Amino acid sequence: MNSLFITFEGGDGSGKSTQVDLLKDHFDRLNLNIIKTREPGGTPSAEILRDILTKGEVNRWTPMSEALLMWAARHEHLVNVIEPALKSGKIVICDRFYDSTFAYQGVAHNLGIDKMIELKKIVIGEIEPDITFIMDIDPRIGLKRTIERSTLENRFENYDLKFHNDIRDAFIKIANENKHRCVIIDASLNEKEINKIIISKINELFL
Amino acid sequence: MNSLFITFEGGDGSGKSTQVDLLKDHFDRLNLNIIKTREPGGTPSAEILRDILTKGEVNRWTPMSEALLMWAARHEHLVNVIEPALKSGKIVICDRFYDSTFAYQGVAHNLGIDKMIELKKIVIGEIEPDITFIMDIDPRIGLKRTIERSTLENRFENYDLKFHNDIRDAFIKIANENKHRCVIIDASLNEKEINKIIISKINELFL
Repeated sequence: MNSLFITFEGGDGSGKSTQVDLLKDHFDRLNLNIIKTREPGGTPSAEILRDILTKGEVNRWTPMSEALLMWAARHEHLVNVIEPALKSGKIVICDRFYDSTFAYQGVAHNLGIDKMIELKKIVIGEIEPDITFIMDIDPRIGLKRTIERSTLENRFENYDLKFHNDIRDAFIKIANENKHRCVIIDASLNEKEINKIIISKINELFL
Repeated sequence: MNSLFITFEGGDGSGKSTQVDLLKDHFDRLNLNIIKTREPGGTPSAEILRDILTKGEVNRWTPMSEALLMWAARHEHLVNVIEPALKSGKIVICDRFYDSTFAYQGVAHNLGIDKMIELKKIVIGEIEPDITFIMDIDPRIGLKRTIERSTLENRFENYDLKFHNDIRDAFIKIANENKHRCVIIDASLNEKEINKIIISKINELFL
């Protein structure tokens, strides 16, 4: 298999990181050359931005500056981690990428997806994932899971239910408008079942 | 006098903050309602970004993410400080504004002024200062002054002389292309002499 850029998207508590780990284990068993990473973050400079983005008061940033910090973190991550890995033929599995900015800042924060698409062009150009798994779940279930794990990175989780419902709807819309790369996953299923669906989709498309 | 938005621009060590202070003193003597502020920074959220932008290794950010952090700081500052002050009829004197991003990230970092103009439109729209004083000085003299004041905020000063010469040229170009609001000041003159020139220019245009 050549280089492959796989992203996982979805609301808080939709099981993205569990699926990232299970997929990594699968590729590791096949002895494939792979890196697992996440956004915002994934490189020391971008982790500084993750810290100020995911902690603290919900209103500590204007929606626009929040979006700009996300794009800054993404540029650091792309240039320093993702692009070099893909160039050297690796598989990159990334927990969140630009679809999250489209859904969170573009839709739930009302900046508009069009503005986020303009920013994407300026900041990272035409690059897109080879495949994006959209983990879809009722936010009431997702948020219950995040409360149970209780981390300091709860700034986004602390927004109200409408915010999280808007994000869910936005991801479904993004998936429907990007069918060439997006696969919607029923994230209420058992985690091993989901892992099987994901692996079979990857095998079907890229093997 | 109604609200007035005055910005000072120029390379490191060109005497901007001295002139900001002298102009503030002048307005204070006239009992005018005025705020003095600076970029990056000017509000607690933006000062966090100032800290990570102005300290540390020269290459700690990609030029693009550096530009995005500058725009994020500017959005915080504009929404929370500058716009409310102007709306309530105050005079705002700001040490650096978007022309610095055009010169530093657009020109000296080679991102292109066009890209910075696109970002300006997306982030802050059509707003521009009423008058901008471009403090022009040979970077060798300016940098000598900054070394003497020795602060931790020396990340930009640590770039090479070509970088600082590019910035000087960029500011002159910006001034010539925006003659309706930009005034070039010979920053090698005595500071009181410069202050007189600035006050007489403001009186000529706005009183």
